Amino acid sequence: MDARELRGVVPYLPTPLTAEGEVDEPALARLCEHLIASGVHGLTPLGSTGEFAYLDFAAKERVVACVVEAAAGRVPVIAGVAATATRDAVAQAKRWAALGADGILAVLEAYFPVPDAGVIAYFTAVADATGLPVTLYTNPNFQRSDLTLEAIDALSHHPNVAFVKDASTNTGRLLSILERTEGRIGVFAASSHITAAVMLIGGRGWLAGPSCLIPKQSVRLYELCEAGRWAEAMELQRGLWAVNQVFARFNLAGAVKAGLRLQGFECGDPAPPQPALAPAQVEAVRQALARVGAL
Amino acid sequence: MDARELRGVVPYLPTPLTAEGEVDEPALARLCEHLIASGVHGLTPLGSTGEFAYLDFAAKERVVACVVEAAAGRVPVIAGVAATATRDAVAQAKRWAALGADGILAVLEAYFPVPDAGVIAYFTAVADATGLPVTLYTNPNFQRSDLTLEAIDALSHHPNVAFVKDASTNTGRLLSILERTEGRIGVFAASSHITAAVMLIGGRGWLAGPSCLIPKQSVRLYELCEAGRWAEAMELQRGLWAVNQVFARFNLAGAVKAGLRLQGFECGDPAPPQPALAPAQVEAVRQALARVGAL
Amino acid sequence: MDARELRGVVPYLPTPLTAEGEVDEPALARLCEHLIASGVHGLTPLGSTGEFAYLDFAAKERVVACVVEAAAGRVPVIAGVAATATRDAVAQAKRWAALGADGILAVLEAYFPVPDAGVIAYFTAVADATGLPVTLYTNPNFQRSDLTLEAIDALSHHPNVAFVKDASTNTGRLLSILERTEGRIGVFAASSHITAAVMLIGGRGWLAGPSCLIPKQSVRLYELCEAGRWAEAMELQRGLWAVNQVFARFNLAGAVKAGLRLQGFECGDPAPPQPALAPAQVEAVRQALARVGAL
Amino acid sequence: MDARELRGVVPYLPTPLTAEGEVDEPALARLCEHLIASGVHGLTPLGSTGEFAYLDFAAKERVVACVVEAAAGRVPVIAGVAATATRDAVAQAKRWAALGADGILAVLEAYFPVPDAGVIAYFTAVADATGLPVTLYTNPNFQRSDLTLEAIDALSHHPNVAFVKDASTNTGRLLSILERTEGRIGVFAASSHITAAVMLIGGRGWLAGPSCLIPKQSVRLYELCEAGRWAEAMELQRGLWAVNQVFARFNLAGAVKAGLRLQGFECGDPAPPQPALAPAQVEAVRQALARVGAL
Repeated sequence: MDARELRGVVPYLPTPLTAEGEVDEPALARLCEHLIASGVHGLTPLGSTGEFAYLDFAAKERVVACVVEAAAGRVPVIAGVAATATRDAVAQAKRWAALGADGILAVLEAYFPVPDAGVIAYFTAVADATGLPVTLYTNPNFQRSDLTLEAIDALSHHPNVAFVKDASTNTGRLLSILERTEGRIGVFAASSHITAAVMLIGGRGWLAGPSCLIPKQSVRLYELCEAGRWAEAMELQRGLWAVNQVFARFNLAGAVKAGLRLQGFECGDPAPPQPALAPAQVEAVRQALARVGAL
Repeated sequence: MDARELRGVVPYLPTPLTAEGEVDEPALARLCEHLIASGVHGLTPLGSTGEFAYLDFAAKERVVACVVEAAAGRVPVIAGVAATATRDAVAQAKRWAALGADGILAVLEAYFPVPDAGVIAYFTAVADATGLPVTLYTNPNFQRSDLTLEAIDALSHHPNVAFVKDASTNTGRLLSILERTEGRIGVFAASSHITAAVMLIGGRGWLAGPSCLIPKQSVRLYELCEAGRWAEAMELQRGLWAVNQVFARFNLAGAVKAGLRLQGFECGDPAPPQPALAPAQVEAVRQALARVGAL
Repeated sequence: MDARELRGVVPYLPTPLTAEGEVDEPALARLCEHLIASGVHGLTPLGSTGEFAYLDFAAKERVVACVVEAAAGRVPVIAGVAATATRDAVAQAKRWAALGADGILAVLEAYFPVPDAGVIAYFTAVADATGLPVTLYTNPNFQRSDLTLEAIDALSHHPNVAFVKDASTNTGRLLSILERTEGRIGVFAASSHITAAVMLIGGRGWLAGPSCLIPKQSVRLYELCEAGRWAEAMELQRGLWAVNQVFARFNLAGAVKAGLRLQGFECGDPAPPQPALAPAQVEAVRQALARVGAL
Repeated sequence: MDARELRGVVPYLPTPLTAEGEVDEPALARLCEHLIASGVHGLTPLGSTGEFAYLDFAAKERVVACVVEAAAGRVPVIAGVAATATRDAVAQAKRWAALGADGILAVLEAYFPVPDAGVIAYFTAVADATGLPVTLYTNPNFQRSDLTLEAIDALSHHPNVAFVKDASTNTGRLLSILERTEGRIGVFAASSHITAAVMLIGGRGWLAGPSCLIPKQSVRLYELCEAGRWAEAMELQRGLWAVNQVFARFNLAGAVKAGLRLQGFECGDPAPPQPALAPAQVEAVRQALARVGAL
């Protein structure tokens, strides 16, 4: 399966946790099965929504192995690599490839600020580590490091750097990336962007947590955009945007887990000290899902 | 002329200044004539690009009177009101109305932070001051105050509050405003947004400085969007986005004035201590304009 | 009176306003008389606390003239100059000098960001405008421009640039300024710093709003610091710090005006849309003042 | 050894790394020996300077075991606990206690924002995990979470929460903490504060990386402060502040490692992708150290 052709709706999977804080693999496998049946185009374990920042290496291994087995080659698995230290990132990438991942989603976590040369060296090391296509992931809201346009341009020349997912709220930046990299790199939206707008400007789809809760609606939106049926796309988009907005107001992992519980997929709560959603927040999630027929 | 029907391309006019720092009214009138001949749908003196923050009341009066006279009723004039103190804003609004402005663009400048109740009181006072339609203008990059979704919602119930122009880079926020206010308020884009994307989600057009330099191209883009010819619109949009990007990197007033000089409209330099563009910056403006046939 | 020798406690005066928003000169004169009788070493009209950002040129003129007359040469008057445009700043400086001010407190307001060269040009123009000593004033919390160490160093070589007042919360920066400028410039604290600590590292005193409410206590603290009686100074400092802390939580002008009202000096409310303090906030001001014997 | 009595100079140790990225225990032991011989009052492995954010659990274990063995009961060892997930932090605390640490320095790392209730729950869990005294460590520059005054106050009632180290640049906040917690918690400075000023306001000493390079000078400064010899203290402080300033400009771990190399303590480079210092930066470190007689 060549993940270099990736397009469409690729949910950011939550990591179901037991009350003891262990990965709940049966719950994760069941969710993957449901999403594939709903038509999604790929699966992304260990993104932000997957609480990568709260899991150790062994837990991450179990997550990737579980998702690869559940996907069973039907859709590509784009596994998250995230570290502060280059050698940890390289170790993750090699291991995820050995476990059967089809692509890498790469994040640089930072404590001390890192200059562009260090940022480029980090992602280059991840891209060199395996033959898998790499999606650069930048989220200036939660990561202490942002990818500059210059760094993205430099990295776009690496044969394994295939895509970028930008989780800022700055939609114009995506067009700037597309213009600057002249086709060397594809762009995916995050839940912070209006996905129809990103499709309009040349995006390939979106990697996002809310898609776990609205997979069929998301796939329908993608298809309308691909068909250039923009008026219908925008009608659907309005309701889906309200879902994204609810999630932006709460803890992201908590909101996805609360919504999945409402849909009958018990995934536990976010890892402490992250709070579970309060009842009024759960109600807001319920209303947003009900509006788009996702309950 | 009812500015409540405003749609389309409404350039943010620079304020031409002589070497002594006085308003150059002949240059301003000549620019207005050129823009109207190029098909723009309105004119906005005293926006950010118009350096409202660098002009006193008397200079602002001359700007508004000059633009109203130049427009001669052919297109609506939406004049900027900006102040820290409510009573100064009200005085500006009353005076601009007396001078013949068709609408008000309202900005809250802040030194000390103002809570939402104060923000709402300020804009309500401006909206009460005249019978003209008011466009709320929020620019979190340069103003110390931002308009919250709650404040915009509250203000949208005022009969004179007609539009909002959001100059953040967060395009999703525009859709949130549209959804939240349920048709009570229209949305205009700024140069920080991809205008075609804002049109797609239901925008009415854009109030922006770069339109002074690319008026015909901007009007063409607007018409393509209105006609739902999105593929053609995006082809044109790419080149126009490069113009906006150049401006975002430099001083905005300086970039517009430098570009107009290249086109034969001498408007002087920005008010000191703002710098004029350096030669390499002028060259970048020149290249961006040449690419879209604006030189 | 040579303001180049300025040391000690120099209150930032509020600008008393009538219900109609006019400068209440009798109230201002009465406050000046009270502060001089309390032993302060100078007076500063048109600082942040003086709401310079909410007053036009004519109102500022009345403030400066009133304070100069009230001071009657007994203490130096350091009048605030604040503008976005260089020529406005120069006009203010020349006028305040003509009105009899003894020194200038200079602020750069900014809308668009200004590079260091522009910052230096602005303050140099103010320093060139008169023969009065200039205090550079930087407040990164409320002004959109901050003074870099490099800019302060460059300006410290100007014969009229005598002092800097830094209203950040970064006390270490004051020591960095002192070390970098090697005696060319003196340092005053703001209410955001522990004034005893600033005296310890070589400061000359403080220019601050809360001193209007605790003038005698402030002068006593200054004298203890000058005498090297640090243990006693710190005992007094603790209570005075609680006053500063209360003010940092609320609107600064509002807090000073509320406190003065409690002390019998009616100065009106802050200029709208700034809110007056809520009753619970007034009570917090009352408690802080009572603790240090200022009621 | 009761670390509840901790006062004085407690260096933040770097983590010496080999070219392969392994902990260099002989180098670490040698550095500890040198610092104890220089008179420091404690040792802190796994602070910011110790690159805790770049080390896995096994590497951290080796660091703590090595420092405990090297200290040999002569000075207390305050070992850093840092995690995003509560259960990881508790596991670290229990393990460091079992290895013989005398106290815990506790950090909350965050990816998604955590509300105050979660922050308090996290630190309470760490404080409950062992009988050791806990130092709360907040560094708003590098950690995505800051400790509010309210959270510090709540935590100060826990019998094991003994101290707070604040690495903001806001020195006034330290006095606010001391006033608010009324003796329940002691305060240590970081290298971002002027340590003499923190001693003046009631601090107990400082936990800081630069002390590794200037241990004797730091101890001397501490003793002068304790003796109330403030004028002499400030004279010494000026040179030491220049050392801190150099470090604030560069990567902190890189600066400490570069300085130790100049002093003959080879500790390797920071973990990639952090850069080692460039030659001009090394020269700046050299000059700052030479000025205070530390070379």
